[in-house]
Amino acid sequence: MKTSWLQIPENSDFTLYNVPFGVIKINSNYYAATCIGDTAINLFELAQLGAFKSIKGFNKNTLNQQYLNDFIALGKQITNAVREEIINLFDEKNGAQKQQFAKALLKLTEAKNTLPIKIGDYTDFYSSIDHATNIGKMIRDPANALMPNWKHLPVAYHGRASSICVSGHSFYRPKGQKKPADADAPIFGQTNLLDFELETGFIIGKSTTMGDSITTQNASDYIFGKVLFNDWSARDIQTWEYVPLGPFLAKNFASTISPWIITIEALEPFKVEGYKQIPEVLPYLQYKGFDNYDINLEVIIETQQGVQTSVCQSNYKYMYWTMTQQLAHHSVNGCNVNVGDLMGSGTISGPQPHEFGSLMELTWKGANPIKLNDGTERKFINDNDSVIIKGYAQKGNIRVGFGECKSTVLPTK
Amino acid sequence: MKTSWLQIPENSDFTLYNVPFGVIKINSNYYAATCIGDTAINLFELAQLGAFKSIKGFNKNTLNQQYLNDFIALGKQITNAVREEIINLFDEKNGAQKQQFAKALLKLTEAKNTLPIKIGDYTDFYSSIDHATNIGKMIRDPANALMPNWKHLPVAYHGRASSICVSGHSFYRPKGQKKPADADAPIFGQTNLLDFELETGFIIGKSTTMGDSITTQNASDYIFGKVLFNDWSARDIQTWEYVPLGPFLAKNFASTISPWIITIEALEPFKVEGYKQIPEVLPYLQYKGFDNYDINLEVIIETQQGVQTSVCQSNYKYMYWTMTQQLAHHSVNGCNVNVGDLMGSGTISGPQPHEFGSLMELTWKGANPIKLNDGTERKFINDNDSVIIKGYAQKGNIRVGFGECKSTVLPTK
Repeated sequence: MKTSWLQIPENSDFTLYNVPFGVIKINSNYYAATCIGDTAINLFELAQLGAFKSIKGFNKNTLNQQYLNDFIALGKQITNAVREEIINLFDEKNGAQKQQFAKALLKLTEAKNTLPIKIGDYTDFYSSIDHATNIGKMIRDPANALMPNWKHLPVAYHGRASSICVSGHSFYRPKGQKKPADADAPIFGQTNLLDFELETGFIIGKSTTMGDSITTQNASDYIFGKVLFNDWSARDIQTWEYVPLGPFLAKNFASTISPWIITIEALEPFKVEGYKQIPEVLPYLQYKGFDNYDINLEVIIETQQGVQTSVCQSNYKYMYWTMTQQLAHHSVNGCNVNVGDLMGSGTISGPQPHEFGSLMELTWKGANPIKLNDGTERKFINDNDSVIIKGYAQKGNIRVGFGECKSTVLPTK
Repeated sequence: MKTSWLQIPENSDFTLYNVPFGVIKINSNYYAATCIGDTAINLFELAQLGAFKSIKGFNKNTLNQQYLNDFIALGKQITNAVREEIINLFDEKNGAQKQQFAKALLKLTEAKNTLPIKIGDYTDFYSSIDHATNIGKMIRDPANALMPNWKHLPVAYHGRASSICVSGHSFYRPKGQKKPADADAPIFGQTNLLDFELETGFIIGKSTTMGDSITTQNASDYIFGKVLFNDWSARDIQTWEYVPLGPFLAKNFASTISPWIITIEALEPFKVEGYKQIPEVLPYLQYKGFDNYDINLEVIIETQQGVQTSVCQSNYKYMYWTMTQQLAHHSVNGCNVNVGDLMGSGTISGPQPHEFGSLMELTWKGANPIKLNDGTERKFINDNDSVIIKGYAQKGNIRVGFGECKSTVLPTK
C-alpha cells in the first residue's frame, strides 16, 4: 500500500495510485497541477524546485500554459515518467523532501481549477445498451428499442466543443423551439425538460494523420486519460429538432467536465471483462483481453439550499462498446484525431432502475417523479439546482477517484 | 468601375471589389494575404513596407501567423479599414506606389495557400429546400419529403473540424460499414457511393459568451466572410449509420474549403430577397429587408486525365434559410460561437435538375448516370477524380468571385 508524506484522508479519490493532471490558475497565471489527498501541487513550481530534471525530452514550459495539450503532446513516455516521478517524490519514504517542495503545494480547496484541455473536436458516443434500450422503448418502438445498427457499430455524433466548461460553472436554462404534442406548430420558450446525462469522457493523447486508422490493439496509446462528463440535455427541444440529423441545440448550450484527468495508466488495475457482444462484431472492432473498467458512478442533485440527494448509482462497466472500439471505429474511415479531442461515452445506464443515467430514464419521461431529501420532487431539473457527478474505482486498498463534476442551472436569461 | 494598377484579366474573380483574405506559406512562414487579378499580395510585407500605419488599434503581427483568427478578432472596424486601404493602394490612381510595394507581390499561381482559419467548431446546416426535398423523396417518403420541423427551424448538426482541408488537397477513399439491401448484416469495405456536396460556408468574425444570443438584426456583425465548401459524403456508410443521431463517419473523413475568404462586405452588392417562408417563422427567426445573396455556383468533375465536365450549375439564392437566421437559431439557446468557427450551408440545390448540388440528386441515387466529356459515366465519384467548386457574383460590371475549391480522391489506403 503506497503512502505519502502528504496527508491522504480515508476514501480520498486522490491517492498515490491516482496522480491525475489538471490546470490551476493562480493570480492570472495557469499551471499544470496534480493533487494528492487534500493537497494540490503546482507542477511548474515543482519543476522550478528541481523535479523532472532527469526526464529526457521533457520541457517544463509545457507546465506553464493555459491548457495541458502541449504537455500531453510530449508523449506517454514523458508524461508517464513525470507521473512516476511525482509518485516517487511524494512517497512516504521521501518525506525528507518536504521542505524542498513546500512552495509548490496548496490546499486543494484553494486551488482554482480551469478547463484543463483546449478541446479541438468533441464526439459523443451512445454506447450504453441499457440507456439506448430505455430511450428506444420510450420514444420509438418498445418491441424494437435498439436500432438495427446499434449492435454493429458504436453509434456516435459530433458535438459542440465551445460550450464545454469545467466543473463549478453555472449556465442559463436554454430557450428554444419545442412542439407540444397537441399543437399544430412549434412554440418558443425555455426548456421545461432539462436533464443531465451521466457520462465519462476520454482525452486523446496522440494525434493521427488523415487517412490513418487506429486499431483496437494500439488504441490505448492514443488515450491519455478520463474525466467525468455531464452532457446537459433539453429533452423538449431535442424531440422536435433531432430528426433526421441528430441533436443540436438540445445539447450544445452547456456540458461539464471534471477538472482532473485520470490517466488511463491509473485505471489499469480496475480493468474488467467487456460486455459480451452478440452478434459478433466486424474484425476491426474485435479485441482481446479485458477492455472495460469497473468505475462506480453516482449522480447527486443538490438544491439551492444545499440539500443533496443521490439519484443514480451506475458503473462504467455497463458500457457495451469499449473506448478502444470507439476509437477504432472513429478512425476506420481515416478521420484524424488530435491531442485534446474529447470522446464522450454517452449516458451510462445500468440494468437496474437506480442505475439509469438520466432523469429521462429515472422518472420515465416524467411519469414517475423522484423524491429528494428535502421532500420536493423532480421530474426534470429545476432552476438553481446543481448536479454533481462523482466516480471512483476501488480494488482492495487501492482507490482511484475522479473528484466531482458539478454545475448549476440559472433561470433563463 | 474600379481599376487597379495591377493587371486584372477579364472575368477575374479577384477584382478591386473583392479583396478577400487568405493565408500563404513562403518557405516555412505563414502570411496573411489577399489577391487582385493574378497577383497575390503578402499583407505582412505590405505592412512592413508602410501600409496600414494610420489604422488605430491595428497590430501587424496578426498578419504574420498561421491562421487569420487573431486578425479577424481585431474586429470589423479594423479589418474593414485594412481592406479599404488595400483597395485604395492598388487603385489605378495610386500607380505611383508600384515600386514601394513590389516586394509584397507574387504571382497568384505561385502562392501556396494554406488553411486560412483555425476552425474551432464546425456546424453544417441543411438549408436548401430543393436539396432537403430531393433527399426526403429518395430515402424517406415522397409524399412527405420534408420533415415536420424543416420549415420551422434551420436544421443543422455538428461536424468534424479536424478533417477540413484547404483546396488542393487529396484524400483516401474512406472505408467503413455498410449494409447491402439484401444482406442480414453489415459488411466492411470501401465506400462505393462517394459524393460531393456543393456548399458554401461562413466564418464567424466575432465571439459571443455562453448565454448570449445573436439576433437576425445584428447577425451580420458576426459574419466575417464566406468560402466555397465541399462536404464530401459516403452515401452507403451514411445510410447505415445515420439513424438516430445523424451522419458521422459518412462525413468526417474530409471536407474542403476554398482558400480565400470573401468578406461579407464584398458580397453586399449581390443581396437579393430571401425565399418566401410559409408558414411564417417564429419571431426570433424573422428578418427585414434583403437577406439572401445571388451567387452563381458550379461543380466540375475533372478526370485523372484532366478532362473537365461541368455537372451542376446552382445558385446560393435558392437557400431557404439565410445566414442571419442560421446564426440566430444556433445561438438562441445561449450556445456560444468563436472567431473562426465555420458554418456550412448544407448542399445548395436549385429547383432544376442541372442545379442539384450532389451526385445523389444529379443521378437520382445512381439510377441516371451522368455523362462526362471524355465519354465515361459517373453514378458517384471514381478514384483519382477531382471535384472543383467555383462561385462568383456579378452585377453589371462588378464581379466578385471565390476562386476554386478543389480536391482529389485517392484509392483506398
